[in-house]
Amino acid sequence: MGTLHRGRQSFIFDHHPSILAASAIGGKKEQEGPLAAYFDYTNPDTKFRQPTWEKAESKMQQMALDAAKEKLKIRYEDIDVLFAGDLLNQCISSSYSVRDTAVPFMGLYGACSTMAESLCLAGMAVNAGYVSLAAAMSSSHFATAERQYRFPLGYGGQRTPTAQWTVTGAACALIGTGGEGPYLNAATIGAVWDYNIKDANNMGAAMAPAAYQTLRAHLDDLKLTPGDYDLIITGDLGAVGKEILMDLFRKDGVSIGGVYNDCGTMIFDLQKQDVHSGGSGCGCGSVVLCGYIMKQLQKRKLKNVLFCGTGALHSPTALQQRESIPGVCHAVSIGVERR
Amino acid sequence: MGTLHRGRQSFIFDHHPSILAASAIGGKKEQEGPLAAYFDYTNPDTKFRQPTWEKAESKMQQMALDAAKEKLKIRYEDIDVLFAGDLLNQCISSSYSVRDTAVPFMGLYGACSTMAESLCLAGMAVNAGYVSLAAAMSSSHFATAERQYRFPLGYGGQRTPTAQWTVTGAACALIGTGGEGPYLNAATIGAVWDYNIKDANNMGAAMAPAAYQTLRAHLDDLKLTPGDYDLIITGDLGAVGKEILMDLFRKDGVSIGGVYNDCGTMIFDLQKQDVHSGGSGCGCGSVVLCGYIMKQLQKRKLKNVLFCGTGALHSPTALQQRESIPGVCHAVSIGVERR
Repeated sequence: MGTLHRGRQSFIFDHHPSILAASAIGGKKEQEGPLAAYFDYTNPDTKFRQPTWEKAESKMQQMALDAAKEKLKIRYEDIDVLFAGDLLNQCISSSYSVRDTAVPFMGLYGACSTMAESLCLAGMAVNAGYVSLAAAMSSSHFATAERQYRFPLGYGGQRTPTAQWTVTGAACALIGTGGEGPYLNAATIGAVWDYNIKDANNMGAAMAPAAYQTLRAHLDDLKLTPGDYDLIITGDLGAVGKEILMDLFRKDGVSIGGVYNDCGTMIFDLQKQDVHSGGSGCGCGSVVLCGYIMKQLQKRKLKNVLFCGTGALHSPTALQQRESIPGVCHAVSIGVERR
Repeated sequence: MGTLHRGRQSFIFDHHPSILAASAIGGKKEQEGPLAAYFDYTNPDTKFRQPTWEKAESKMQQMALDAAKEKLKIRYEDIDVLFAGDLLNQCISSSYSVRDTAVPFMGLYGACSTMAESLCLAGMAVNAGYVSLAAAMSSSHFATAERQYRFPLGYGGQRTPTAQWTVTGAACALIGTGGEGPYLNAATIGAVWDYNIKDANNMGAAMAPAAYQTLRAHLDDLKLTPGDYDLIITGDLGAVGKEILMDLFRKDGVSIGGVYNDCGTMIFDLQKQDVHSGGSGCGCGSVVLCGYIMKQLQKRKLKNVLFCGTGALHSPTALQQRESIPGVCHAVSIGVERR
């Protein structure tokens, strides 16, 4: 087993692991947004009947794992390894969600890039034959993220125009051999890039350069052009970061606009839902991928998608110490055919 | 490529990736401890000439990566992927340490089990041929951990007898093909276990059941007995957790005492250094492995070691919400011969 070709940061999954099932769970604002129909379950109660928002976020991960598991009609013991992460300190949404399952668990922290990181690792584990069935999962919650990263919600702080709205959502994908696709065909692991952005309300600007670097590496390593995909999608650059990314490519004389979109600008109605620059969070890219995009792939309305998870690796402590915000981006190539 | 045998949670690395270089960096108390001679560098200034402890911890990771890199006489661009994590919120020690390197980076959160998790993933990536050279790294710092997880140091809170002292240290291992060992021969991925421990000053008790579960799975999956290793070592159970783990095995009629030790009880002199139950933290297991144990393997004083990284997946927020502390443990089998 292994890989056929490897560029500097990219590899081909020569055994083409398949996304056997995927699920997406969402909250109130997601239920009111344009992609509402693509969720497996949404709940207008942002606490999901739990005593705290943090427990609600953990509950959403449980629900996402269970929903994916039920689609495949499998049991917890059939899942050989779960790669998961979230935005909360010590990634408690993920680790607390699986403590009654006995599923081998590897915790990740890639900020909002976590779904791409977990898909990439699940693909690596299945493609090489280490495991038969791997799960990739991530979540975020508006209320847990706001009070941890910025201000307590009760404070009622004003949001700047570049600010994004953390998606309340969780998603899970089950990756295995066989199946009828969509297939994981390739992946690119990104490095950490720091362009000296210090505004915690402008994540798009902090992450766009990392997205550019990873996309460039992916296209160069695998000798592809943007037109080889019918959708290149970033996780949560939002309206501001999306423009920056297109600008960075324009400077190279490359237009990605025809095939490029961002999950953060798709999950909410930016005109009507008061989310300023759009959605963000580990749950943003993951629910758009596991909800909307999966269904487009299944219906063959999309055939080749490059999913680019984007993460801002900041922390309130680091910002208090006047640090800038580094970004990271990992990319996974998903197609209805093996290629 | 791939694996020869796979148990429920374990796999054999059939291409036996090699630890090509390893490095360990330590602070003041580590310099005063019994393993002082095995560090590449120790500094009595716990700020490592940085303005804050957090930046000092990040600096230690930089130093660990650079020290390992220099031993192999390679450049950053020769490292195909780095798996790293730490205990700080949003894992800033790791991500900030590599932002000038352009090394493909995957951030992990496994609490104090992170070194075993990163070694396991680095082994998987190299063994399957995804990459030629992978790095595994983790760190912790007494002062950053105390103020984040417990109390500000200036508060002068009393420590309970079961409390452990977070190691100030960082370590890095470079994993590749070829080389003369020590080799990564097998790995076991652990699940999350929660035995309802709620005392943040008794991590050993929270982690011991997870260590037991992973060790049991490792021995069962690969049909081994404790005597097949000349050292089974947990990351940071400390004196209390170590006793609990031995007790759990005693109930099965299995004695591990002859080959078992814990990094947390080795890195400090528990009688003289006022560390109560011993050392802890992502840096505890990693520096003992990459410092002391590596040198014993190189001198063939040890031949087969099972390194079991142990992590308490708690968070101050979860404890404030009256949650218990789940544990996790991953194991990596390291030997001077391929087996």
